[in-house]
Amino acid sequence: MAERDPLVVFTPSGKRGRFPEGTPLLTAARKLGVDLDSVCGGRALCGRCRVTVAEGRFAKHGIDSAAANLTPVTAAEARYAARKGLAPGHRLACQACLAGDLLVDVPPESQVHRQLVRKRAEAREIALDPVLRLHFVEVEPPGMEGQRGDLQRLQAALERQWGLSRLQPDPAVLRELQPALRAGRSKVTAAVHREREIVAIRPGFHDAALGVAVDIGSTTIAAHLCDLASGAVLASAGAMNPQIRFGEDLMSRVSYAMMHPGGAGEMTEAVRNAVSARIGELARSADVDPADILELVVVGNPIMHHLFLGLDPTPLGTAPFTLATDEPLDLRAVEIGITNTGKAARVHLLPCIAGHVGADCAAVILAEGPHLREEISLIVDVGTNAEIVLGNRERLLACSSPTGPAFEGAQISCGQRAAPGAIERVRIDPETLEPRFRVIGCELWSDDPGFGAALGATGIAGICGSGIIEALAEMYLAGILAADGTIRGELAARSPRIRAEERTFAYVLHEGEPEIRITQNDVRAIQLAKAALYAGARLLMDRLGVEHVDRVTLAGAFGSHIDPFHAMVLGMIPDCPLERVSSAGNAAGTGARIALLNRAAREETAALVRRIEKVETAVEPRFQEHFVQAMAIPHAIAPYPSLAAVVSLPSRSGGAPPAPRKRRRRVRG
Amino acid sequence: MAERDPLVVFTPSGKRGRFPEGTPLLTAARKLGVDLDSVCGGRALCGRCRVTVAEGRFAKHGIDSAAANLTPVTAAEARYAARKGLAPGHRLACQACLAGDLLVDVPPESQVHRQLVRKRAEAREIALDPVLRLHFVEVEPPGMEGQRGDLQRLQAALERQWGLSRLQPDPAVLRELQPALRAGRSKVTAAVHREREIVAIRPGFHDAALGVAVDIGSTTIAAHLCDLASGAVLASAGAMNPQIRFGEDLMSRVSYAMMHPGGAGEMTEAVRNAVSARIGELARSADVDPADILELVVVGNPIMHHLFLGLDPTPLGTAPFTLATDEPLDLRAVEIGITNTGKAARVHLLPCIAGHVGADCAAVILAEGPHLREEISLIVDVGTNAEIVLGNRERLLACSSPTGPAFEGAQISCGQRAAPGAIERVRIDPETLEPRFRVIGCELWSDDPGFGAALGATGIAGICGSGIIEALAEMYLAGILAADGTIRGELAARSPRIRAEERTFAYVLHEGEPEIRITQNDVRAIQLAKAALYAGARLLMDRLGVEHVDRVTLAGAFGSHIDPFHAMVLGMIPDCPLERVSSAGNAAGTGARIALLNRAAREETAALVRRIEKVETAVEPRFQEHFVQAMAIPHAIAPYPSLAAVVSLPSRSGGAPPAPRKRRRRVRG
Repeated sequence: MAERDPLVVFTPSGKRGRFPEGTPLLTAARKLGVDLDSVCGGRALCGRCRVTVAEGRFAKHGIDSAAANLTPVTAAEARYAARKGLAPGHRLACQACLAGDLLVDVPPESQVHRQLVRKRAEAREIALDPVLRLHFVEVEPPGMEGQRGDLQRLQAALERQWGLSRLQPDPAVLRELQPALRAGRSKVTAAVHREREIVAIRPGFHDAALGVAVDIGSTTIAAHLCDLASGAVLASAGAMNPQIRFGEDLMSRVSYAMMHPGGAGEMTEAVRNAVSARIGELARSADVDPADILELVVVGNPIMHHLFLGLDPTPLGTAPFTLATDEPLDLRAVEIGITNTGKAARVHLLPCIAGHVGADCAAVILAEGPHLREEISLIVDVGTNAEIVLGNRERLLACSSPTGPAFEGAQISCGQRAAPGAIERVRIDPETLEPRFRVIGCELWSDDPGFGAALGATGIAGICGSGIIEALAEMYLAGILAADGTIRGELAARSPRIRAEERTFAYVLHEGEPEIRITQNDVRAIQLAKAALYAGARLLMDRLGVEHVDRVTLAGAFGSHIDPFHAMVLGMIPDCPLERVSSAGNAAGTGARIALLNRAAREETAALVRRIEKVETAVEPRFQEHFVQAMAIPHAIAPYPSLAAVVSLPSRSGGAPPAPRKRRRRVRG
Repeated sequence: MAERDPLVVFTPSGKRGRFPEGTPLLTAARKLGVDLDSVCGGRALCGRCRVTVAEGRFAKHGIDSAAANLTPVTAAEARYAARKGLAPGHRLACQACLAGDLLVDVPPESQVHRQLVRKRAEAREIALDPVLRLHFVEVEPPGMEGQRGDLQRLQAALERQWGLSRLQPDPAVLRELQPALRAGRSKVTAAVHREREIVAIRPGFHDAALGVAVDIGSTTIAAHLCDLASGAVLASAGAMNPQIRFGEDLMSRVSYAMMHPGGAGEMTEAVRNAVSARIGELARSADVDPADILELVVVGNPIMHHLFLGLDPTPLGTAPFTLATDEPLDLRAVEIGITNTGKAARVHLLPCIAGHVGADCAAVILAEGPHLREEISLIVDVGTNAEIVLGNRERLLACSSPTGPAFEGAQISCGQRAAPGAIERVRIDPETLEPRFRVIGCELWSDDPGFGAALGATGIAGICGSGIIEALAEMYLAGILAADGTIRGELAARSPRIRAEERTFAYVLHEGEPEIRITQNDVRAIQLAKAALYAGARLLMDRLGVEHVDRVTLAGAFGSHIDPFHAMVLGMIPDCPLERVSSAGNAAGTGARIALLNRAAREETAALVRRIEKVETAVEPRFQEHFVQAMAIPHAIAPYPSLAAVVSLPSRSGGAPPAPRKRRRRVRG
């Protein structure tokens, strides 16, 4: 570069250099290592290299004057603009050539490694760095390069035009090569995985590379279709896990595998078919070619992980709960029976952490980033097993706790899944002991005018997990529940809602058909579940040597629906300022999506999982101690100063009704 | 190693060193880099490390006295001897420890890289260096190594006990791991591919790793089951290629693929099924567990290669005859539909050389080693296409020549495949013009007493390729055929064997039912085929700039059956001393077997194929010239001094019958 050559400065990187007049901006950007995208390699086909000219030496403002320092719009560029549109002031860097000094801005959408914006303010950013990229190439026709094979000429073209050497094709892709070269008249687009392997060949210029992030839960399977180039979620799909017919909870599925020869295989087939079905659904709803789906990331708890892989889950059912592998896996989709994607699509499975702490938990950690913070985070993914993570950038601990299915409405007399007709919010007046509630599918509270009409045909079918949590917390705050969990029979004299049932009492929440009531057994089931959850968290706090946590994140479908206030009243989670308790929604799905879009996130997770301290609750004597003490409401272990600041909790003595609340947060939704 | 430590010298390597007393011989061998086998890693289970003690310092002769310098037979060694036998004077190197100076001999069967003996004296040796090896390990039970997964504990054991690091499992093997650990009580044998990947896990100590070499010909599929440790061929199987129903020759199969949508797929399925069936047959006949078959090597001509891989063969049917790939391929057997082997069995395909010169030809070169010699070799693999190789260590050239199916008995009026009932040997008395012949399946000549009875029910059905070659050569030597290939009608007066047929004449070889005769059209068909063959060889000689070759090898099923003398009389091959013309049998199959047993041979072949000069006969004007001139018998291009030394050839003039032969080689077989 001579001193008189034009100077070009790229923003936001600030990279700069002098290049001879006539050098395309894309070439200059490449040489300077500027993060500027391109699929077509400079043929004005993809439009990925759009830039704006911020400043030319002789013309301070606007493209028209700055254009003096750039060569004019080319015919190819004009064709692109006519076909796909090009905003005023934008140029294609592959077409615009240096004619003088320039300041060029690379907008975020033209950067390969752009940041994705997420909705939750506290969530970590997703940096786009996809595991595969598309490269358009013109392959020399046969006979021109010393009679080499199609593959060798493609490899030569990728090396010559993109500097990619020693790329190997997936065997399935070898089969795509001949027809693609024929249909594309020697022009093809290659999808290249990790700069190592060719995983798809399409005729001509082709600008679609898609991925799917899958979270296999015991109950539901959620999947998100993403554009690997932009990171955009194109469609989401969710459905019940069909394995439910083999057992509601994880342990009953392990039992099924133990008791039925071939049972594990049946469950493997069921979950693979369900994942395939979701993929088909996603492609249809986003109207994309399923053959463009080239990358999958799958997470799930250890038993789902093993069953999906066709591994025996039974070792996970008994001590020492040994995983077949605790490292990430990279497979081909066909190897796990998924054939409705690109033929050479790859699958990455995040690693399981321990026998009871799955890849879903690893994904939650990836999404929430507790290891990136100084403050101590507690993350609870509530399901049939609660997976609990505690720590910060120094140390991370994880365990799982056998909460059982009560939180999901199972084992509860009027319980049901969170579905239309289920009571999900409950308030009880401490004076009258009368309840009001909301039902999924209806915007009104039960004491709002027009509630009956708004409810419509769905009616009231039962109570879901979050409804039970609120009902019990409200019963406790209203004095109906004693600290030991007993429904106070003596209140039957004050309200017909408290009703004798054999030798115990129940609280009638709704008198219609069916009648919805909370029985003493229901209370016991929730007590067991919440005690397990708290005991797990407490065990990790003991291990870490902390008495309080700086933030609590509730993850998972159920975790996202429960009200932190009620959860804390019941003593499910340790004390924490309420504004620092948040719901992360399907954080496992988000983590899977991050791993789909950012290759470094995969290595980050693998390294993280290796250093997580695994705590096995089943063999920890202190877990049992905590568990017993955590049965009380809130529990008999540690105080709740944060909660006491918001509401006056009933006294431990058990007899007197509580004092009226000082103030009460307004419930969300 | 202290100076007073015992000295041990290993033969035949001559490696030596001093080790402390009590060092196991296996340990000493390992440290010195002595080629001494072991699967069990020193547990007296495999017996692979058997050695003999040639000399101890204080005891010159015999094991008993030498034993003074070795520790006594251990209990484990005695158990091994009782179970599997241990010859007198043999010790297990893992059990016998140094007690004084020793000279230890490692017999060939205890060496990993031993040489295999081959039957043909001129054939290159096969050095054993298998691509996979077995390693017995004791895996720490779960819970003992910081709660790692099964795979991680296996990896740790392989690293600790065998120094193998970063081994990755095939996904299918991950599924074998849990049951193997359970059944083997944490003791398993791992099959490791190229020190990189685990391709099988078996419970406990397991000493079987097998491979299959497959040669897919247009007409027949041949397969050999080999023990990868010893190199022994355990069984061989051959069958017709079922693709024959889609077309007899290669071009008719390409046409089938062109004309029928899905036709290529049908042929792919047919050939894969046939290969699977051969594998099943081999396992049954050798009485081995097919799951122990972990490695396959497959060769075939380009069209067979492409169809086997599921690639489109039609580009191979028209210029520029482009291969999908011209490099070797490493696949998993399941990827090409072969599932009756070990679940993670690997397949190596040798590279095709050019659009008409296949991986079978690469295998022939590997087996025959023309690139290892100073002298010029001509190798002809005769089939529907003849694949021709010429050269030496300096240069190698290859081409294929469209001989058509005449050599295989097709397009010949009484022609048939080489099968019982086919005439395969012919002699004609130049005085009487009477023939004598032999038939496949019968040891007697047709003029031997008892021939008719010996022939039995099979009878005489037709004439096969080698029979036609001999018949024509003998007709020429007897003066029945003119140099231009005309059957001399004027001889009808001398013998009823020469019979008029429309406007030409035929020679009646056998007067029974069916009558076997050689028609003028038959002669023309063979003339075309042999002219193509010679023209191809001649073209390569032109290119290489040689006027004669030092040796000729006839490969392939047909090549192995034709008599070099008759082939040379007809002018199929150029002049060469007859003792330097040999049959290599199924050299392609042998090459596949070498690639199966020796990993370096694969790299050798790939490198070799890259430097072979490919000659495309279809676009070479000189090929046409040679072809026209080669139609004459022997042909009108170059003299046959070697042949003239053996037999006096008829004059070119055409009229007079030839002089009686000077002498005549006795026919083989």
